[in-house]
Amino acid sequence: MISSKMRDMVLNSSTIRAMFEEGKRLSSIYGEENVFDFSIGNPNVEPPEEIKNIINKIINEEKPNFLHGYMNNSGYEDVREAIANHLGLEYNLQLKCENIVMTCGAAGGLNVILKSILDPEDEVIVFAPFFGEYINYVKNFDGVVTVVSADTNSFQLNLEELKNKISNKTKAVIINSPNNPSGVIYSEETIKELSNILREKELEFNKDIYLISDEPYREIVYDNTKVPCILNYYNNSFIGYSYSKSLSLPGERIGYIVVNPKMNTFEDITAALNIANRILGFVNAPSLFQRVIKESLKLEVNINIYKKNRDLLYNHLVSIGFECLKPDGAFYLFPKSPIEDDVKFCEDAKKFNILAVPGKTFGCPGYFRLSYCISYDKIERSLKAFNELIKLYK
Amino acid sequence: MISSKMRDMVLNSSTIRAMFEEGKRLSSIYGEENVFDFSIGNPNVEPPEEIKNIINKIINEEKPNFLHGYMNNSGYEDVREAIANHLGLEYNLQLKCENIVMTCGAAGGLNVILKSILDPEDEVIVFAPFFGEYINYVKNFDGVVTVVSADTNSFQLNLEELKNKISNKTKAVIINSPNNPSGVIYSEETIKELSNILREKELEFNKDIYLISDEPYREIVYDNTKVPCILNYYNNSFIGYSYSKSLSLPGERIGYIVVNPKMNTFEDITAALNIANRILGFVNAPSLFQRVIKESLKLEVNINIYKKNRDLLYNHLVSIGFECLKPDGAFYLFPKSPIEDDVKFCEDAKKFNILAVPGKTFGCPGYFRLSYCISYDKIERSLKAFNELIKLYK
Repeated sequence: MISSKMRDMVLNSSTIRAMFEEGKRLSSIYGEENVFDFSIGNPNVEPPEEIKNIINKIINEEKPNFLHGYMNNSGYEDVREAIANHLGLEYNLQLKCENIVMTCGAAGGLNVILKSILDPEDEVIVFAPFFGEYINYVKNFDGVVTVVSADTNSFQLNLEELKNKISNKTKAVIINSPNNPSGVIYSEETIKELSNILREKELEFNKDIYLISDEPYREIVYDNTKVPCILNYYNNSFIGYSYSKSLSLPGERIGYIVVNPKMNTFEDITAALNIANRILGFVNAPSLFQRVIKESLKLEVNINIYKKNRDLLYNHLVSIGFECLKPDGAFYLFPKSPIEDDVKFCEDAKKFNILAVPGKTFGCPGYFRLSYCISYDKIERSLKAFNELIKLYK
Repeated sequence: MISSKMRDMVLNSSTIRAMFEEGKRLSSIYGEENVFDFSIGNPNVEPPEEIKNIINKIINEEKPNFLHGYMNNSGYEDVREAIANHLGLEYNLQLKCENIVMTCGAAGGLNVILKSILDPEDEVIVFAPFFGEYINYVKNFDGVVTVVSADTNSFQLNLEELKNKISNKTKAVIINSPNNPSGVIYSEETIKELSNILREKELEFNKDIYLISDEPYREIVYDNTKVPCILNYYNNSFIGYSYSKSLSLPGERIGYIVVNPKMNTFEDITAALNIANRILGFVNAPSLFQRVIKESLKLEVNINIYKKNRDLLYNHLVSIGFECLKPDGAFYLFPKSPIEDDVKFCEDAKKFNILAVPGKTFGCPGYFRLSYCISYDKIERSLKAFNELIKLYK
């Protein structure tokens, strides 16, 4: 008697659970240290040490009914103001409290945005490879997902295809940079061109088209690369942000939405976000962690740990014949599968105790994702297994 | 360009904001201490003092990647198990980890339940007076709300009307006890009769009908009354629970769903709840507060503060001629409006600096709600204002 929408998902979830059980089965036979689980994006780098002291200070200094109480559904004004100032300085923008809505992570934020803007049958465009949950988020509000296929040369955006796929039903476009699963950061050139196309199409169809930039990995970048700030390129834009990766706090569900101050009908949009946050049942982002974030704006996790992991794994895979772009951000590699069938490849990998996710899951078959947010040690121990794995196809 | 579903809500929200602004305007003229705001259900009683030490202990003892990390979307197994055992003992039930899903408060929990069970056009029955958000929650999933009108003699359930309103489209029935806004606890007799009717209708229509019991006020009860546990009376039942009121932690968004172990297709249902929690963007209930709850199962707030407030306000209102049932729970009074038009009455009340919410908001015109979760002092000072107010109609 579950809803028909959920029925397929429940069936599908037993497949995922089977994969998870397989991991546990392998661990029980070979020992946890000999199972190379590259399938999950759960940060292994610790949150900044200071977080503990900040929590301590807050619970000792703030009045408990204020600290754990209700506030505006969009969050504490002083916290939103502090984030607005912080981002304003970093990206040279005029942001205020009104531009920020505190959310239960980026997943919460994207749902709140989509609830606010989508009518049934509205189309939302995503670019392969993409985080598979976008499809569920759009379907939550009876929207229709249109996929632009991957540009597998650069893993930038396939903008020619985008031009053909935007229609008068397109309400929004979602991008995710640094990208899960490719790790690629969309260049300033890509963002400029994307923005130009969207503006042209807004004129052509005489409607607003929203650009939603999902940026949980914005601070997980290497070699001094910087993620261009979408707000400086396109007016009808939102950022969805989360501290899950940048401060390694994924379980606490804390993040925010930024609404471009130049957005059309700004006041209606922010009012709608406020209401959506409430009626979807979030009510507000967790209150203690809103206050923790206010004191943590300058903190960061040790990115070098991820960078060392990336270099070790990337260099080895390429040296033994895998084709892979060297990504500048996030904690994923997205190599080409040595055989066309990426699902079969991931099945083969299990024989060597390697757990990876097929590219098909991200709308990009023929590739596979490795999450390298695991210990350096374990990656080192996995290298031999990759050597054995690739021999299968030589 | 916001969604058409949101448009009315945004318009409506400016009315609510206007009310809020009116409160601020009155405060600026008469002083905050002379404005009697009975409109908001934000607990004024402090969380238990021990919560602070528990947080302290947890952040010092737990590994931070475990404490702030992802876990099963339904929550930490050990936390769910501890809650299951605690409830099992209290209500003489066999509950396990599998029966509990940790949620972002009861609002999150109700949305997760409705997402899991509702197909478009499915009907959900609510009993007036009801918490107005239920309508939004049901509409989130394209369900249709059917209202059973209030039994204003007892504020128990109008079960004769229920019999006529259940149809083959009815998927669920929501009850809320202790009730917001009436404060009434549904008696064991009411619950038994309700359960009998639902079972008969399940047979008649050959389908499952879910009973969802929303219980954020379960522990806010006076004079040794006890809330009957729905799980003992009806198999296809859920409880939605929150620590917002029982531990005065509304901002932290922590609560749970209980799934009756005797529910039909139990495994499909719990799998659907797990997925719904994820795809709606909650992902999981906030992790630190899941662990706090595990250590706080025996804690409670000082209910006597609310009880003293209730007695003071109730006795005075009745003594000056208001008609009102004396409620056994929650922190609301729901007196009869001295004039038929409850909206007009609440407008009149503002002239005496009293802010109240019209019964219309709860599907029960002709009444008004007073939230007495404010300081005893302020209630004392408000009594004269009520004297003046009722004179208008004599």
